[in-house]
Amino acid sequence: MKKHNFSAGPSILPEYTIKNTADAILNFAGTGLSVMEVSHRDKEFMAVMEQANKLFKELLDIPSGYEVLFLGGGASMQFCMVPYNLMNKKAAYLNTGTWASKAIKEAHFFGEVVEVASSKDENFCYIPKGYEIPSDADYFHITTNNTIFGTEIKEDLDVNVPLVADMSSDIFSRPIDVSKYSVIYGGAQKNLAPSGVAFVIVKEDALGKVDRKIPTMLNYKTHIDNESMFNTPPVVPIFSALQTLIWLKEQGGVKEMEKRNIAKADMLYSEIERNKMFKATVKNIEDRSVMNICFVMNDEYKDLELEFREFAISKGMVGIKGHRSVGGFRASCYNALPVESVKALIDVMQEFEKKH
Amino acid sequence: MKKHNFSAGPSILPEYTIKNTADAILNFAGTGLSVMEVSHRDKEFMAVMEQANKLFKELLDIPSGYEVLFLGGGASMQFCMVPYNLMNKKAAYLNTGTWASKAIKEAHFFGEVVEVASSKDENFCYIPKGYEIPSDADYFHITTNNTIFGTEIKEDLDVNVPLVADMSSDIFSRPIDVSKYSVIYGGAQKNLAPSGVAFVIVKEDALGKVDRKIPTMLNYKTHIDNESMFNTPPVVPIFSALQTLIWLKEQGGVKEMEKRNIAKADMLYSEIERNKMFKATVKNIEDRSVMNICFVMNDEYKDLELEFREFAISKGMVGIKGHRSVGGFRASCYNALPVESVKALIDVMQEFEKKH
Repeated sequence: MKKHNFSAGPSILPEYTIKNTADAILNFAGTGLSVMEVSHRDKEFMAVMEQANKLFKELLDIPSGYEVLFLGGGASMQFCMVPYNLMNKKAAYLNTGTWASKAIKEAHFFGEVVEVASSKDENFCYIPKGYEIPSDADYFHITTNNTIFGTEIKEDLDVNVPLVADMSSDIFSRPIDVSKYSVIYGGAQKNLAPSGVAFVIVKEDALGKVDRKIPTMLNYKTHIDNESMFNTPPVVPIFSALQTLIWLKEQGGVKEMEKRNIAKADMLYSEIERNKMFKATVKNIEDRSVMNICFVMNDEYKDLELEFREFAISKGMVGIKGHRSVGGFRASCYNALPVESVKALIDVMQEFEKKH
Repeated sequence: MKKHNFSAGPSILPEYTIKNTADAILNFAGTGLSVMEVSHRDKEFMAVMEQANKLFKELLDIPSGYEVLFLGGGASMQFCMVPYNLMNKKAAYLNTGTWASKAIKEAHFFGEVVEVASSKDENFCYIPKGYEIPSDADYFHITTNNTIFGTEIKEDLDVNVPLVADMSSDIFSRPIDVSKYSVIYGGAQKNLAPSGVAFVIVKEDALGKVDRKIPTMLNYKTHIDNESMFNTPPVVPIFSALQTLIWLKEQGGVKEMEKRNIAKADMLYSEIERNKMFKATVKNIEDRSVMNICFVMNDEYKDLELEFREFAISKGMVGIKGHRSVGGFRASCYNALPVESVKALIDVMQEFEKKH
């Protein structure tokens, strides 16, 4: 049976990435050796790193003055690296969910944190607006896409202080104006690669402004100076990331992804609205994530939640159980998810509706 | 042509690990999905994590009271995590090479560092002995195997303060008495897995003794409490590590590895001694690494260094160029390197000798 992979992350990757990674595990770049057992200083892997960096910049149209880093440790490590490198006294954060809250918690280790607004009062089902950012904040931190709650900040904000964004789950899903940000970071395990590597896009002149001493591995400058090769990088995840970037370019880049992602999301949200059994958890249409589409059973069908989940699984749907903080269902529709999978899920929803 | 992979790290892995990883990239545990695109919370990957942890403990005969962690960021991140978690005021370090020096550098961010001894005076070609460790040091840090310089501390030291060891390049090469250590850590990319994961063996009651606040991701306690799943772990490197652990057990475990590794190292050091063209860089026989065997041309053959390297490459030898700090050659003979590769290198050395 064909599987439709709606996992929230790690999540579906292009066939191209999977096939090329499997091939390179057996024989990398004609070396006769596995990509797992070659030195990261060999010319073949140096070429991978260089090409990944170049394509990353090209696909996001990253202006000069910014560097792209590939680091171990995941986005969670960035929750402390960001304030370590950027916060002198005070930073402002927007609290839009579990991951934003975790980022806020780490910032408290480094100075004063101003939570400018929070949607915790309604279980993070909307994106707060109309907040004020203290003009003396060293930066303002946002989580553009909230994987768990299915909300998304879909535009590049204009703010009065340096802007930092966790884009773990919507990087490469749409064009972004990188020039509006000082740092953009994320784990790779959604639209890019298997888990084990984080990306950081950092504006060089945003650095060097804090007084504290920064341990070498936690200092962005270290990794900029060493082109992400200060220590042995996560070779396989970076190789896979390059395959996804090549695929992304062949597909038409982030503009084309945005078009396809909006089409997929519109189809699924429309069905959720139409189908009497379901409702979306995010009320404001403009706050609804294009990547993670959260829905629950309508009140009168609440008892059928488990039955629907089992029915969907029996039809090949994978990873659609909602996060325990929200309940219900979550269909993550990342770049690599084909529209056929969305159609298959809609068929399952309609079939279930007919059954009842 | 058959390749003989003497790379220092990332380095040769068992065929078993390579084949099973390639298979799982295409279809993981019969799920019909790639191991790169399944959730780390799915029961299939949870089983991988659990089994890896269990086998790791079993193969090293780790006593109760210790936990094993699999973390992103590499051993270099441990250079700051160790003092973050264990140093209150003062720590003692033995300086035996480049990586030990890097660990020492990070410790300086956290308190007073006593370098009890150093072999820097002779380009780290020996292991210092007869040093004194201040009894008020919070711990004493050693690098058991010095990958670049080819020296190794092959016994588990008895010291008067908690012992911490970087075993990146000799873990699983011999039995160790874990009970003598408070922390043992290392990058996985030598005897275990592809790069992208570090292991930490930590004695639980060594923790909780420092006054400083520790950011969540840098706190060993976080990862103990969450069984290395606080954030998304590096899934593919951990899957591969499990394959190597299964292979290791099938081969007879660390006792058998020690026997084979000593046999391989003895063969190669004997040839270096016998062959008039070469000499070992590490003088004291007891300090010579079983893992990384460093040698240079004898003075009268210095001019032939490049010629020998090219000759060896033409015969399928990979990764035998010495690190720039030492020059000459380095044959890394990790667990997965078959004795046939050592024999092939010896043949090449003898053939080259006959040619001249």
